[in-house]
Amino acid sequence: MNKHPEYLLNKISGPADLKKLSLPEMEKLASEIRTLILEKDAAEGGHLGPDLGIVEATIAYHYYAVGHTSTSIALATGMAKARDLMGKHENIMALIGDGSMTGGLAYEGLNNAAIEKHNLVVVVNDNQMSIDDNVGGLVTALKKLRDSNGETKENPFTAIGFDYRYVADGNDIQSMIDAFKAVKNVDHPILLHINTLKGKGYQPAIDNEEAHHWVMPFDLKTDKTTVAMPEGPTASSIALDVLEDHINNGEKIMAINAAIPGVFGLDRIKNKYPENYHDVGIAEQESVAFAAGMAKEGATPVLFENSTFLQRAFDQLSHDVAANDLPVVMMVAGGGISGTSKTHLGVFDQVMISNLPNWIYLAPTNLAEEKAMMEWAIKQKKHPVAIKMPTKDVPEGKEITAVDYSEIKYDIKPGKDVAVLALGDMYDMLGKKVAEKTGASLVNPVSANILDTAALDKLTQENKVIVTIEDNILDGGFGEKVASYLGDKDIKVLNYGQKRVYTDQVPLKEILKDNRMTVDQIVEDIENA
Amino acid sequence: MNKHPEYLLNKISGPADLKKLSLPEMEKLASEIRTLILEKDAAEGGHLGPDLGIVEATIAYHYYAVGHTSTSIALATGMAKARDLMGKHENIMALIGDGSMTGGLAYEGLNNAAIEKHNLVVVVNDNQMSIDDNVGGLVTALKKLRDSNGETKENPFTAIGFDYRYVADGNDIQSMIDAFKAVKNVDHPILLHINTLKGKGYQPAIDNEEAHHWVMPFDLKTDKTTVAMPEGPTASSIALDVLEDHINNGEKIMAINAAIPGVFGLDRIKNKYPENYHDVGIAEQESVAFAAGMAKEGATPVLFENSTFLQRAFDQLSHDVAANDLPVVMMVAGGGISGTSKTHLGVFDQVMISNLPNWIYLAPTNLAEEKAMMEWAIKQKKHPVAIKMPTKDVPEGKEITAVDYSEIKYDIKPGKDVAVLALGDMYDMLGKKVAEKTGASLVNPVSANILDTAALDKLTQENKVIVTIEDNILDGGFGEKVASYLGDKDIKVLNYGQKRVYTDQVPLKEILKDNRMTVDQIVEDIENA
Repeated sequence: MNKHPEYLLNKISGPADLKKLSLPEMEKLASEIRTLILEKDAAEGGHLGPDLGIVEATIAYHYYAVGHTSTSIALATGMAKARDLMGKHENIMALIGDGSMTGGLAYEGLNNAAIEKHNLVVVVNDNQMSIDDNVGGLVTALKKLRDSNGETKENPFTAIGFDYRYVADGNDIQSMIDAFKAVKNVDHPILLHINTLKGKGYQPAIDNEEAHHWVMPFDLKTDKTTVAMPEGPTASSIALDVLEDHINNGEKIMAINAAIPGVFGLDRIKNKYPENYHDVGIAEQESVAFAAGMAKEGATPVLFENSTFLQRAFDQLSHDVAANDLPVVMMVAGGGISGTSKTHLGVFDQVMISNLPNWIYLAPTNLAEEKAMMEWAIKQKKHPVAIKMPTKDVPEGKEITAVDYSEIKYDIKPGKDVAVLALGDMYDMLGKKVAEKTGASLVNPVSANILDTAALDKLTQENKVIVTIEDNILDGGFGEKVASYLGDKDIKVLNYGQKRVYTDQVPLKEILKDNRMTVDQIVEDIENA
Repeated sequence: MNKHPEYLLNKISGPADLKKLSLPEMEKLASEIRTLILEKDAAEGGHLGPDLGIVEATIAYHYYAVGHTSTSIALATGMAKARDLMGKHENIMALIGDGSMTGGLAYEGLNNAAIEKHNLVVVVNDNQMSIDDNVGGLVTALKKLRDSNGETKENPFTAIGFDYRYVADGNDIQSMIDAFKAVKNVDHPILLHINTLKGKGYQPAIDNEEAHHWVMPFDLKTDKTTVAMPEGPTASSIALDVLEDHINNGEKIMAINAAIPGVFGLDRIKNKYPENYHDVGIAEQESVAFAAGMAKEGATPVLFENSTFLQRAFDQLSHDVAANDLPVVMMVAGGGISGTSKTHLGVFDQVMISNLPNWIYLAPTNLAEEKAMMEWAIKQKKHPVAIKMPTKDVPEGKEITAVDYSEIKYDIKPGKDVAVLALGDMYDMLGKKVAEKTGASLVNPVSANILDTAALDKLTQENKVIVTIEDNILDGGFGEKVASYLGDKDIKVLNYGQKRVYTDQVPLKEILKDNRMTVDQIVEDIENA
């Protein structure tokens, strides 16, 4: 419940209640919803600007209770076809932002939607922004449409067969209700292009759209974040420092990202070295193929990807990069077990990448190691290298110079009877403590997919149990590779990682406990083994 | 060397030689190249129609020796950017077919290419066909452009910012040379739309484009294939029979494919039950999201995918299908170790799918089991199910009825000391023979990602060695899961599968031998263990 008992919103429990409201009441409702979004985001953080911009469209849309919604045109094409097949007749509507339309799947959906002789409404929420500035040719096309009030003949949507309508003020409830009324029950694909204001109702979000797309908790009076920023180096700042050094050194480096410069603080590169910065929009496939093209030409592409979004580029990681064994460097953020929502999990990128040939997948245990790995990855020109950026609280570590990671050498702190191989983030968080409590050897395995078999053979001779801990799902992970390699040897192997399930906003602590990934649980298992 | 010593082509060793030819000589050259394509495909099989259609463009293109080519616009965007960064000035040109433009990556590439202020030429080879009939709204747009000789204002390419040229006869060498001359060294992105005739020079390929897109070896005089067709049921015919049964039964089934009906013989469904057939074009992401949308609505989508192309849809397999645990049925063809080219390998789909939560990945050992698995997959409405269609020579098997695969139960033919778990195709091809020679138990493990742990525990007690054999790469595969599960047990485990490398037209026999996957090698290893 919200803290405004007087709000009109509290009386609305479904579309039917909405229909009883007058237009001024609906406008009041829009304003209430904006306040609640602001209050929620100020307290907890989250998507701000885009949510503020789409309030009226959402109200108008629910006022007419269409059958289904989907942010994805592709999903809607399937739903519309199922409706036909099952002899039903509801309206199918897909809502998509202009930023999301830089992704290939949006186009595949549009291309398929355009030719079916049945009801399907695609609403394009055009707020002239992606997460950062929107990029690409479609921005040009949408601008021509807005500038001509939807009248220009140079219309890519009608060109491919869509009927088309334009709403100049998508923040006006009456206009939106009229627009939805007009497209309801049409017997063909129609595209409704609505012009909205991202951040509407909160001036700082309008003045600085990018900073307000997704926010940390903040003070509504000062617009300043209420979260203490980390002092000293971070996984991102380390990567940017390395990048900057090499650019200053005159190397032909390109920092590539897919609409998420903010995740890495890449604005620093964008502003200072615009020639060495490239944002492809929400188009991860393009980002990876683009990097492959650059590597082929002899430049040094450094990809900045988010684990969860990188899933869209699996084919390019294989066909374009790995099959050609191109020296693409890829920094992966957000990888590992976390308490996030099931649509944003970071436990699959390691599985995707590390099981492909030619990719060298490195997992640093601290910031100094991340730096050394990135330095090496940029210098070597032989293979694609992925680096799993730390997401947990890792130490800075002592400076490491000129390590050659083309041969993986385990770093071993000797102990007795048991060896704990703790990959990346897990080294400091769990491995160290388990080794302390059990007197085990502590091993930094460096890579998620290349084993130091000489070290493993030696560890097998000297120990009774080998333990692996990784910040990833077990299936297709590092531990399984160790277990497979040691399958015919006389040693017990215990693998720790997350089970093959989706978690959805389950606190990290709980996930770890469910997977026996606490220090005490692992120590207990070791003693039993 | 070809069998025509008198050919002009034999005197051409590079673009420089080409430039010395007169126009009639180049036309003779085009005709020679056509003959050679026909002779090669008649003898060995391969892509026919599309190659015949693009001969003149290829000659004209080499005549003007532009710097690079790529079938992918996305790769070209990266190459063009690298050129700029490195201070070079060559022309960058990307060639793409109208069929390939149904894929999202083509659009991501176009969207990015359109806004750069530098030389980049995209050649769209419009032969009005994909592999099968081309589908989607872009077909409409290209037709409007052809019908207006490139003059219509409803031009999606100029809308997004491309300069645009049209060549009405893309099979006329002089027109093509003129067109390439005109776009050479331009300082902005330009799209060259060329209208070509797929199959030109071989009348049967023009009359029946789909059947001649990719051909088996054939007789040039009769156009009949020279390869004996299998008699009796095949992995595809079994699947089509099941499909047809359920459609006849009035179930709301949709057979979905991404431009490859020929791989499965899906024309049988397309012609007989057009309402139950859907081809999304070369757009695997759309195919999977479309299936998710249909399942959400309560229909029964059955996807027909090719292992190697399915890589493009990893994100949809996770986010759209698995995260929502939707009952999508997916038949995967072409999966397994094979002698194909490195761009068409089928050893990664199992890794992708089987490591995702909720997916049940089944691998039948014979055709009867494939049928039972598909029947069950269609009937159950709880989880997504993938079935790895046999690609090796498997037996028909005895009819199996009403097996419930929601619980995986190993089928065990008892032996002594050793248990051989041979997954899918490997059961008959290797497992059976290894078990015969060693007196081992022979186990059908049914699933690549769900273990029958009770059976494994029992096998561990009764044996000294457990062997796994799978038709897949080892990394992220079935064997590693077994090794991990048995890590803390007192038993030796030997995993067989392909190493993590790309193979490129290496004969299957050789790949198997390199991976110790022959009967004799496995028997030898078992004896040593």
